[in-house]
Amino acid sequence: MESLAEVGYAATTVAVVAARAGVSRGAAQHHFPTRADLFAAAVEHMTEVRLAEIRSQAAALPVGAGRTEAIVSMLADVYSGPLFRAALHLWVAASTEEPLRRQIVQLEAHVGRQAHRALLEVLDVSERTPGVRETVQGVLDMARGLGLAALLTDDTARRRGIVRQWSKILDQALATS
Amino acid sequence: MESLAEVGYAATTVAVVAARAGVSRGAAQHHFPTRADLFAAAVEHMTEVRLAEIRSQAAALPVGAGRTEAIVSMLADVYSGPLFRAALHLWVAASTEEPLRRQIVQLEAHVGRQAHRALLEVLDVSERTPGVRETVQGVLDMARGLGLAALLTDDTARRRGIVRQWSKILDQALATS
Repeated sequence: MESLAEVGYAATTVAVVAARAGVSRGAAQHHFPTRADLFAAAVEHMTEVRLAEIRSQAAALPVGAGRTEAIVSMLADVYSGPLFRAALHLWVAASTEEPLRRQIVQLEAHVGRQAHRALLEVLDVSERTPGVRETVQGVLDMARGLGLAALLTDDTARRRGIVRQWSKILDQALATS
Repeated sequence: MESLAEVGYAATTVAVVAARAGVSRGAAQHHFPTRADLFAAAVEHMTEVRLAEIRSQAAALPVGAGRTEAIVSMLADVYSGPLFRAALHLWVAASTEEPLRRQIVQLEAHVGRQAHRALLEVLDVSERTPGVRETVQGVLDMARGLGLAALLTDDTARRRGIVRQWSKILDQALATS
């Protein structure tokens, strides 16, 4: 994932990853027969690590006023970090490479569901309330868009303003739905 | 841009683009000395075309109820189309390629401002009202996130639900700000 984020998809070969990991190319290929297997395993592993981190950070979130902003801010930071940057390289590569595309789509469905569920949980809202599902999905899509905006420049200041405003909007929307 | 959207950045060489355009490689290189020049010109041209299209479609937008949803829906469709798909390939390539990065960042600042201004205009709101700037920027980021979600699978049904819900939320947010 570090290699993807730093040098991109084309330059992230099994040999390059093996060298970074300090293992032989043969050992890497024994565990991950194809490059797509290696990428899929890396995304899945990093996502599990990241979700566990989020769950542990969630315990430290403020209760009451400021909670929603802390949540949206945490989310926007995750999507502007190196894991999302690596995932972007992989998604774009997958869009024109068929075996990789199928693997990433399957994985993405799983990761997307996990992120959605985690967000409902920390916001303490239920999908059974009409509109909540789409409201929460839209916040995840906004976080992805913010991650994309952070790809080429430091977008921190702009992101902070949007997070603050959208947290207010989200609080209102969830209170009235 | 068609080549970028269909076969990706690495495979979109000046020779491939010249062949698609039915001109000689020499003619292409005369007008665009580097590959980065070619990409920057293509993004800029297509963006102008797309903005002109949006402005003409905007004239046909309904007035009153349904207007916001028509706007957000139009926006989400643009960002889920082939131009945005091509731009994604270019952004990701630019993130690890320095001369291209500078060119795309400059262009992106211009394109982003144009999109922001166009959205304020069709929504008939002013940035002088506190919060409006960040609200509208968040909508653009959400549209980018929706475009990203459409990269690997057909996301139309999910997108429609989010557009409907967030149009309602946006109407409320703009009315109370």
